[in-house]
Amino acid sequence: MIIEDNIIALATPPGVGAIAVIRISGNESLKIVDSQFKSIVDKQLIHEKSHTIHLGYITNDDKVLDQVLVSVFKAPNSYTGENVVEISCHGSPYIQKQILELFLRKGCRMATAGEFTLRAFLNGKMDLSQAEAVADLIASDSASAHEIALNQMRGGFRNEIEELRQELLNFASLIELELDFSQEDVEFANRDQFNTLLSKISEVLKKLIDSFSIGNVMKHGVPVAIVGEPNVGKSTLLNAFLNEEKAIVSDVAGTTRDAIEDQIGIKGINFRFIDTAGIRDTQDTVERIGIERTFSKIDKAKLIIYLFDGKNVNDSTLQEITTKYPNKPLLPICNKTDTLKIETIEKLKSKIPEVIFISAKTGEGVEALKEKLYTSVETGTLKGDNIVVSNSRHYDALLKSLEEIQKVKEGMDVGITGDLLAIDIRQALFHLGEITGSVTTDDLLGNIFSNFCIGK
Amino acid sequence: MIIEDNIIALATPPGVGAIAVIRISGNESLKIVDSQFKSIVDKQLIHEKSHTIHLGYITNDDKVLDQVLVSVFKAPNSYTGENVVEISCHGSPYIQKQILELFLRKGCRMATAGEFTLRAFLNGKMDLSQAEAVADLIASDSASAHEIALNQMRGGFRNEIEELRQELLNFASLIELELDFSQEDVEFANRDQFNTLLSKISEVLKKLIDSFSIGNVMKHGVPVAIVGEPNVGKSTLLNAFLNEEKAIVSDVAGTTRDAIEDQIGIKGINFRFIDTAGIRDTQDTVERIGIERTFSKIDKAKLIIYLFDGKNVNDSTLQEITTKYPNKPLLPICNKTDTLKIETIEKLKSKIPEVIFISAKTGEGVEALKEKLYTSVETGTLKGDNIVVSNSRHYDALLKSLEEIQKVKEGMDVGITGDLLAIDIRQALFHLGEITGSVTTDDLLGNIFSNFCIGK
Repeated sequence: MIIEDNIIALATPPGVGAIAVIRISGNESLKIVDSQFKSIVDKQLIHEKSHTIHLGYITNDDKVLDQVLVSVFKAPNSYTGENVVEISCHGSPYIQKQILELFLRKGCRMATAGEFTLRAFLNGKMDLSQAEAVADLIASDSASAHEIALNQMRGGFRNEIEELRQELLNFASLIELELDFSQEDVEFANRDQFNTLLSKISEVLKKLIDSFSIGNVMKHGVPVAIVGEPNVGKSTLLNAFLNEEKAIVSDVAGTTRDAIEDQIGIKGINFRFIDTAGIRDTQDTVERIGIERTFSKIDKAKLIIYLFDGKNVNDSTLQEITTKYPNKPLLPICNKTDTLKIETIEKLKSKIPEVIFISAKTGEGVEALKEKLYTSVETGTLKGDNIVVSNSRHYDALLKSLEEIQKVKEGMDVGITGDLLAIDIRQALFHLGEITGSVTTDDLLGNIFSNFCIGK
Repeated sequence: MIIEDNIIALATPPGVGAIAVIRISGNESLKIVDSQFKSIVDKQLIHEKSHTIHLGYITNDDKVLDQVLVSVFKAPNSYTGENVVEISCHGSPYIQKQILELFLRKGCRMATAGEFTLRAFLNGKMDLSQAEAVADLIASDSASAHEIALNQMRGGFRNEIEELRQELLNFASLIELELDFSQEDVEFANRDQFNTLLSKISEVLKKLIDSFSIGNVMKHGVPVAIVGEPNVGKSTLLNAFLNEEKAIVSDVAGTTRDAIEDQIGIKGINFRFIDTAGIRDTQDTVERIGIERTFSKIDKAKLIIYLFDGKNVNDSTLQEITTKYPNKPLLPICNKTDTLKIETIEKLKSKIPEVIFISAKTGEGVEALKEKLYTSVETGTLKGDNIVVSNSRHYDALLKSLEEIQKVKEGMDVGITGDLLAIDIRQALFHLGEITGSVTTDDLLGNIFSNFCIGK
């Protein structure tokens, strides 16, 4: 792809603010802005150093549109690798629109979603998985999602994959070389070494594939089903969780509430609560169907909170759930503890030793429950600096790579010919390359970058 | 006022975007950011030149929060006149919040609304009317509002006022000097010259006061009442106006539609439409009250569009309005022209010569009506480079100044004593000073800057 045009977009969120930033990238960007920019020291941007800021006026036919600060980034030391100009103007939508329209008339083109990052990729400023991490970073709404994206942007598992891919590529060349000498029955590629490499690759791939379920949780949150009979206080519990969180997020206005519903962050991990209809033991066929639906929701959860009223425990419902989901972590929570007698509490403790006592209404025990939710997830692989896969496209490519590697291994075991082996190796190389972007198709790029916001 | 603390705020609109800018101002701002910023070339911001940009990482306890670009502005060459750092981070609300919270912990304080601009004023970077213009500029949503704000930001009528105020101040000193020699009956201040100055000041003040109604229109739009009987097509006409406009504003997503309702821009002037209940001739007391209400709305309009259905003209209603508002411009508009016979049109033309024929449904004649709306306003003082007053605080101060100047003149005419004269002159000086900020009170500053958005 040859990039010849100059793209422009609003880089800051739309709406009114103190300032707004309009970004232009392209080899002519400095020249285009110079034609409409009057710096207060009367110098041209094209003669200024990279990474400098200049005060002046954006003008249209000698009419001043705004007093602005212009940042100059010269190729290749910019985000896209091209000449980039960032215009920091007053944050009025009217002014933003005027400046955008001015430069659209002067030869810029409106950038498509993710086009700045696409150019950064095409110009070799970042690989594909790093580019994808930029979108994840912007979308991150919890400490863990943020960390995973930041980690990926700074390299992530890319180097490991790229190294293995190189080694595999070397063997592939040797095996393909053998094909040229097929009459002579030579073996350039040491089969033992090759087997060792294949095992190593399989191992790495499996480790990364396994990490996806954790990566997914870190990125999208842990789905938790709150289950219980009607009126045990499910909504009150949710509110008790949410009120805590509201206080923390309120200092940046309008940032979170609208996007997240029934979702709370505990020590940087998001928990998404799945609402379920009340469960109770019934012979009624219609009601039974509703309860089945609840169970299908539980299927999607990683964790079950079983909430009950201490005065009225239904053993059979609890039993039904634990029987149905023997491997799914379940937290039995006794609500309305503030209304219980000591002896009732003692009785419950002996019956269900792992029970947690709370009062959603008074907030008693809610902090302990949060701690419990966190440790339920954290105990296990979340800890440590392990690199995790969170992108489903990567997951997909890893699965396909592993499949091809397995095929190669099986082929080796049954002693298939070099030409068939070469085909499977090429497939594995292809899928590994898809992750880092060594192999790309226009479709793939289109898919990835259309998920970006415009201006990035 | 001594400014010692360091303030921080999000300068870009809240929400998700490609980037967000966080602004810190204060003498320690560079030092504070340095403590959490790791530049890729491992240099400290405090040693960098003003107006330069640096790539690096914002870190919290060795944990990277984000890769950012940091812009350095050194006192006094910054917006506020203090050391200013602008952090351009990835546009995730989560990241914005993390960075804000980090620096709040590290000694910054959340800026109040308009506090950056308040500091710019206190540090002598701009006068009060210029500071107010910044808020107007951000709020501007039409070419005329934008122009008026930009003009004011670049000086506006401030210089003229300041000059006159200086001359008045000189005379005031001379007159007060005379008081010290009151026994000796001397006149240091030439009364003729003083009279000439007072006339000159009155003239300028009157001119500026007169410009306020135009300034107000340019800033807030022209209120237009669309009046007519039920079902003559008022909503269809409004839609015909709005559809045109929608196409123009749609390229910057989410910027205008939500804020502006029933408002259109024609050649840079905003027209705000006031909806009225249908008027018809009636003897019914209750209905009469509703119609009275419509008339009270017409009172607020600068312009009346009288819309009627060509097939069914009601002379008496039109007559009633023109009788009630002999001085208010009224545009008689015949709608549904596409359904009229030639002879009906001819008859209407002879009856109401100034009538404009449109079809709101087909769009026929709507452009001509827009042109007519524009010229109705533009004919008169809007044209030319005249400086206009658009700020009601300035208008108020100008009125009070004029009042005091008149008192001084009257006092001179009846020959009141110097000490009484001096009091009135001081009052006039006070009100003139209020405009530019030569005279300020904490109340005044509080009022002005609380109307700003946070981050400016």
